[in-house]
Amino acid sequence: MDYAGVLSAIESYPSVALISHIMPDGDTMGSALALAMHLNAAGKEVALFCEHPVPPACRFLAMSETFRQPGSWDAQNETYPLVIAVDCSDLERLGTARPIYDSAECTVNIDHHISNKRYARINLVDERAAAVGEMIFSLIRSAGGTVDKPMAEALYAAISTDTGNFSYSNTTPATHHTAAELLACGIDVYTLNNILFRTHSLGRTRLLARVLGTLEMHREGTVALLTATDDMMRQSGAKESETEGMINFAREIDTVQVGILFRSRTDGTVKVSFRSKEYVDVSALAQSFGGGGHTRAAGCTIEGSLEAVKKQVLDRLLPMMERKH
Amino acid sequence: MDYAGVLSAIESYPSVALISHIMPDGDTMGSALALAMHLNAAGKEVALFCEHPVPPACRFLAMSETFRQPGSWDAQNETYPLVIAVDCSDLERLGTARPIYDSAECTVNIDHHISNKRYARINLVDERAAAVGEMIFSLIRSAGGTVDKPMAEALYAAISTDTGNFSYSNTTPATHHTAAELLACGIDVYTLNNILFRTHSLGRTRLLARVLGTLEMHREGTVALLTATDDMMRQSGAKESETEGMINFAREIDTVQVGILFRSRTDGTVKVSFRSKEYVDVSALAQSFGGGGHTRAAGCTIEGSLEAVKKQVLDRLLPMMERKH
Repeated sequence: MDYAGVLSAIESYPSVALISHIMPDGDTMGSALALAMHLNAAGKEVALFCEHPVPPACRFLAMSETFRQPGSWDAQNETYPLVIAVDCSDLERLGTARPIYDSAECTVNIDHHISNKRYARINLVDERAAAVGEMIFSLIRSAGGTVDKPMAEALYAAISTDTGNFSYSNTTPATHHTAAELLACGIDVYTLNNILFRTHSLGRTRLLARVLGTLEMHREGTVALLTATDDMMRQSGAKESETEGMINFAREIDTVQVGILFRSRTDGTVKVSFRSKEYVDVSALAQSFGGGGHTRAAGCTIEGSLEAVKKQVLDRLLPMMERKH
Repeated sequence: MDYAGVLSAIESYPSVALISHIMPDGDTMGSALALAMHLNAAGKEVALFCEHPVPPACRFLAMSETFRQPGSWDAQNETYPLVIAVDCSDLERLGTARPIYDSAECTVNIDHHISNKRYARINLVDERAAAVGEMIFSLIRSAGGTVDKPMAEALYAAISTDTGNFSYSNTTPATHHTAAELLACGIDVYTLNNILFRTHSLGRTRLLARVLGTLEMHREGTVALLTATDDMMRQSGAKESETEGMINFAREIDTVQVGILFRSRTDGTVKVSFRSKEYVDVSALAQSFGGGGHTRAAGCTIEGSLEAVKKQVLDRLLPMMERKH
C-alpha cells in the first residue's frame, strides 16, 4: 500500500476531522480513534464525528468520549481543511456528517470495502485488509509513529470485531501479524475480549431465553426456526439491536442447513432473517419475497400473521432444499 | 526452546507411539495429530493412543480416525521403543495408556503446563507457549519439515481451542505469529472456526433455552444464578458435557460480578460452579463448601435440595461481596 499521499496530506494541514460511518462498528470507531491519537501525538488538532453514538462496547477506548454528533458542528466558525472518512465505502455512509466532509479543502478516504467508490481526492483502499484497523496500523508505522497501548487497544478492537475474533474468511496472515504487534504493545487481550465479545445486557439474556424457547425443527433437523415477538421484546426489556446474532443459535445446530429468525411485529409484518450453512442460496429465497442479501445470509419483510408467514417461507424453502440435495 | 533432544530421539527410533491425555481437548488432539503426520512424512511408523474417544469437533482432522483406545494395544506383540506424551502435565493424564508409556525404551514429554512434573527422559516444557500446538509447529520447522494443510488444520485446532480463539490471557505475540504461518498454509479459517466453535447439538441448544429460562438475579444484578436439573437434561436430550460453558451466559451479563450454575441431581446433590468477573474470590467460597478452583473459576458439590443449596450459597456469597466493595 502507498501511504505517502495520505501522510503528505496530513503533513500539510494543522487540523483534521475524522468521520466514522453511520451505525458505527468496532472497526470505524477503533480505526478513527487510533488515527486521532496518532494525529494528536503529531501535534494536530483533531475532531471526531459520527452521526450515531459510540456503541457501548467501544466506550472504554481512549478519546471515545470526544466523538461528536454532527449537529454540534458550527459550520461558520469551525473549519477542517482536511477531512478523512474512515471505513466508509461511499458518501452515504457519512450520514449527517456529510457537510463537514463537503466543506473540506482536501478529502481522504481510508477503507477496505471491495465496493468502495473512490469518492475522495486521496483514496487509500485496500480490499485485502480484513479491517481498516490493519491499514491504520501500517499508516502509523509508515509515518514513523509509535503505537502506544491506548492506540493498540483501539486497533485491536477494530480488527477483532471486523474479523469475528480472527474467525471470518477475511482473516489473513497479515491480520495475525498485526495482532501480534498489538499484543506486543502490552494490551490485555482477555479483558478486551470480555468487553468486546462477552458482555451482554440482562434484557438480551432474557430475550435469548425466550427466543430459544421458540425453537422449531423441520425437514429432519435441517431447518431451524426461531421467533422474536414484540411481546417477548417488551417482557425481556431488550433493545431491537439485541436480536442481532440470535439467528446463529439456529444455524449452529449441527444438523441444520438453514436457520431462520422471524421477528414478528404487532404492526402485522414479520421481518425474516435467513442463514445458510453449505448449499442453500437464501438470497434467492429472500428475493422471492422482495428482500435480498448474500448467498449465506439474507432477509426480507413479509406482511401477515406469524403462522401464515412461517408457512409461506417453509413452502418455498423446502422444495429448494430437495432440489439441491 | 531446545528441540535438539527430541529431534535426535525421533531420529533414533523407527516407530513412535504418541499419547494424548484423558478427556482430550483440541490441543492434545491437534498437537498429536500434526506430530503424527510429520513423523509419517519422515518415514516413521506411528501409533496414536488416548483413553477417551476423539471429541466430535476434532473428528474432521486428518488421521483422527487412527486414534486407538489403549484396550486395543497388544503388549506382547506391539512395542514402541519411543513414546511421546503430548500436553500431559503428569503421568496420571495418560490414564489407561500408561503401560504403553512404561514399556518404552525412551520417553518424551512435550507440554506447556506450568505444573508439569518433568516425568520423562526428555522433557520439552515451555510454559510460555499458549498451546502445545505452538511448540509442535516450531519442532516441525526445527526438523526442517514442511507444514502442509492437514497439519496446519490440526495445529490451528490445537492453538485456537487452547486460547479461546486468541482471547485468553495466555495468547502472546508468538501465538498470533504462528497462526499467521498456519493461515499461509492455506487453511480455511471460517470453516475451521464453524467446526471448532460454532457447532452444537440440538440437545445442547434445547438445554440452553431451559437453563436460561431459570435465570435469577440477586444483589442489584451483581449475582446471576442459572440451574440445570436432571429433568431438564432428560427433556432436552443433552449430554452432561454439554452444560459446559453455559455458566458464561450468567457471567457475561454486564452488571454481574459472580455467575453461578447449579447442576441439581436427583441423587440429592447439587454441583455448583462459580465464575467471578473482577473482585470476588470464588475459590475461597468453593473451598468453604469443600470444593476448590481458581480465584475467578471454582466449584463444589453440596448435598441438599436445590432451594436449600441456593440459599446456603447466597448466604455465604453476599457478605463476601459487601466486604470487598
